[in-house]
Amino acid sequence: MTTGHTAPPGVIDLLGLLAYAELGSFFRLADDAGLAPSLRSKGQLAALAATEQAHYQALHDRLAELGVDPEEAMEPFVAPLDLWHERTEPQSWLESLVKTYVGDGIAGDFYRKVAELADEETRILVEGVMAETGRAEFVAETVRAALEEDPKLAGRLSLWARRLVGEALSQAQAVAVSRPELATLLAGKTAEEGRVGADAAGLGDLAAVSRMFASLTDRHAGRLKAMGLAE
Amino acid sequence: MTTGHTAPPGVIDLLGLLAYAELGSFFRLADDAGLAPSLRSKGQLAALAATEQAHYQALHDRLAELGVDPEEAMEPFVAPLDLWHERTEPQSWLESLVKTYVGDGIAGDFYRKVAELADEETRILVEGVMAETGRAEFVAETVRAALEEDPKLAGRLSLWARRLVGEALSQAQAVAVSRPELATLLAGKTAEEGRVGADAAGLGDLAAVSRMFASLTDRHAGRLKAMGLAE
Repeated sequence: MTTGHTAPPGVIDLLGLLAYAELGSFFRLADDAGLAPSLRSKGQLAALAATEQAHYQALHDRLAELGVDPEEAMEPFVAPLDLWHERTEPQSWLESLVKTYVGDGIAGDFYRKVAELADEETRILVEGVMAETGRAEFVAETVRAALEEDPKLAGRLSLWARRLVGEALSQAQAVAVSRPELATLLAGKTAEEGRVGADAAGLGDLAAVSRMFASLTDRHAGRLKAMGLAE
Repeated sequence: MTTGHTAPPGVIDLLGLLAYAELGSFFRLADDAGLAPSLRSKGQLAALAATEQAHYQALHDRLAELGVDPEEAMEPFVAPLDLWHERTEPQSWLESLVKTYVGDGIAGDFYRKVAELADEETRILVEGVMAETGRAEFVAETVRAALEEDPKLAGRLSLWARRLVGEALSQAQAVAVSRPELATLLAGKTAEEGRVGADAAGLGDLAAVSRMFASLTDRHAGRLKAMGLAE
């Protein structure tokens, strides 16, 4: 970790994780262009992707301001996030939209965690990113409309959403083991305690991380409902 | 063409062409992510792509303001531009950068044509887009630096740039034949004459279009030089 920054290492980890999550989402959304049913939805997809890029840029620049090498901060999360995308490649436009909604929702949970723990300036940045909820609503509405037209889609898309969150939890567990500072942070300890226990996250921390994931799963259920999908 | 707009049909064509060119460039750049040599250049590539998306959005919204269905205006240019991308798929990061620079340069020539011919509000929009030259400079500099490090690359990249513009001219000729209004416009006639002659572009117009392409090729030579490449 580069020296000279003022944020606790766990927060840097969270910012690096979110930065690469946004960059990865950007490329994934652009990749899904072939699934878009029309020129209009291709354009909408490009707009969604551009929003992810703007978030990436904001996080990237904030990391640099904190004296951290942004690429170094992102690096530990490249493999798990790439693996998540690889294992959850959408096969249809609706699957792509559901993935966007679920993925943005999970990212939102992590953004909230950053807002709780980080310095004032980072908190303001993160809250600005979270305020951009309009497009998530558009995605949920599109999925709901498609389900109203063809209710038979609900079962398959619910399974898809379950797989998305299952694969995310699996990658998150791997990250929690390899990044003890992050595990400590997510376990809800204060920044100071987190710094002290940074190199030795015990089983207690991992259990706390599991509880964090459980609550994440609860919020996931709410997001499914917003799209008209059952848990 | 949707009724109710005030711009001459050729200008609508140019705006539709540029809108789809920006959208296509956005997806093409994102597609090239696999060629990026580092996480850092992946991020730069995402930033370039997001700029294309912003231009697409501005053109799209302007078309809608002019009372035109933006997708309808883009439609005639989807096939030729997709074909251009298909026939000029970069095989390396440098090829991708050269393509960005050459493609943006050609787009710039068309933007200048729009600025000459369109209404005041469209002209201001287009000049705003053209003012964003910083990133083109970054691309040219990166190519120049790579050539200084390995001068043997120059021959291959010069051939590549020639192929890019050759394929572009080939697609442009096809468009000029199928879009007589656009051919008339590019031949340098006034908007009013263009409207009158819209349905019957003669051989004279096509010759004029060829002259337009010749001057485009001249400007292309200047862009090659900016990247440190010979014609």
